Amino acid sequence: MYEVEMKVRANHEQVRRALDEHGATPLDTISQEDTYYNAPMRDFAETDEALRVRREEADGDERAKLTYKGPLVGETSKTREEYETELGDADVMDSILDSLGFVPVETVGKERERFSIAEYVVTLDTVNVLGEFVEVETEVREKGIDAARAGVAETVETLGLDPDSEIRTSYLELLLDNAY
Amino acid sequence: MYEVEMKVRANHEQVRRALDEHGATPLDTISQEDTYYNAPMRDFAETDEALRVRREEADGDERAKLTYKGPLVGETSKTREEYETELGDADVMDSILDSLGFVPVETVGKERERFSIAEYVVTLDTVNVLGEFVEVETEVREKGIDAARAGVAETVETLGLDPDSEIRTSYLELLLDNAY
Repeated sequence: MYEVEMKVRANHEQVRRALDEHGATPLDTISQEDTYYNAPMRDFAETDEALRVRREEADGDERAKLTYKGPLVGETSKTREEYETELGDADVMDSILDSLGFVPVETVGKERERFSIAEYVVTLDTVNVLGEFVEVETEVREKGIDAARAGVAETVETLGLDPDSEIRTSYLELLLDNAY
Repeated sequence: MYEVEMKVRANHEQVRRALDEHGATPLDTISQEDTYYNAPMRDFAETDEALRVRREEADGDERAKLTYKGPLVGETSKTREEYETELGDADVMDSILDSLGFVPVETVGKERERFSIAEYVVTLDTVNVLGEFVEVETEVREKGIDAARAGVAETVETLGLDPDSEIRTSYLELLLDNAY
């Protein structure tokens, strides 16, 4: 399955009204704090890799995960190698990475509120420093990618937002651009 | 608390008889497979660090852990920084370490059978390639270390083994010595 998604800046109050009008269903609320690391032996900004410790809280449950994302596979695809495992203790993982010489470069904290509307998931993200965003996404098989992109763009319009204002930059990159 | 321990080579059949005679209580049986990694940016054999992915099975429960052990703190102490966290998926952790350039150098597999006898824990280890060992250990506050060492040595004798044949080398080092 492929994930087709579109992210735009948006005023949440306005989007909530649109979600309500279109009978969207609230799914869940997640609070995430992601610490991104750089490596001692190479610069992930150059190699386009990412190593992340995620702390997540959903419905009172706390979880932690370690995620590695490799560079893009090939020039045209948007595919990356991605490995993720749960962690018993995120603080311990931070200490291990620190001992090994990995350096935290940025922390992305966000509150995510998710809704479903037809076959789309609409996420209202409030990101530290950056502010409010809305993501619309759906999953499809390879054949359906073009139709799904059109559907996602249409849903963005339904919410009163402009698909042409799509932001393809990750929150991490936006925060790094902000800082340097 | 400090861990005082002594490890010797031993024939388990003989030790089992001695444990039985002295009314030792069986505690548990654990199967462990430890993969030790070396780092891409420095040689852990030189820096005296260790990074380990442990797969453990006890009473049908499988668990995985990531452990980092730092170099000895100071010249005389046997103290190290040690960080350990549970992992949701050991295979994923292996893939992340591999992607980051860490290299598996040795795997130590062992079956551990633990017994308690007075305030001591006696572990019968069957280690891949290396064979059978017995470890006797106890926990004490700093003040009691000398007395605990004497008690551990006495327990080793009680089991029909010789405290002077103590092996201070880790299974990992024994296996590495074996191999190269």
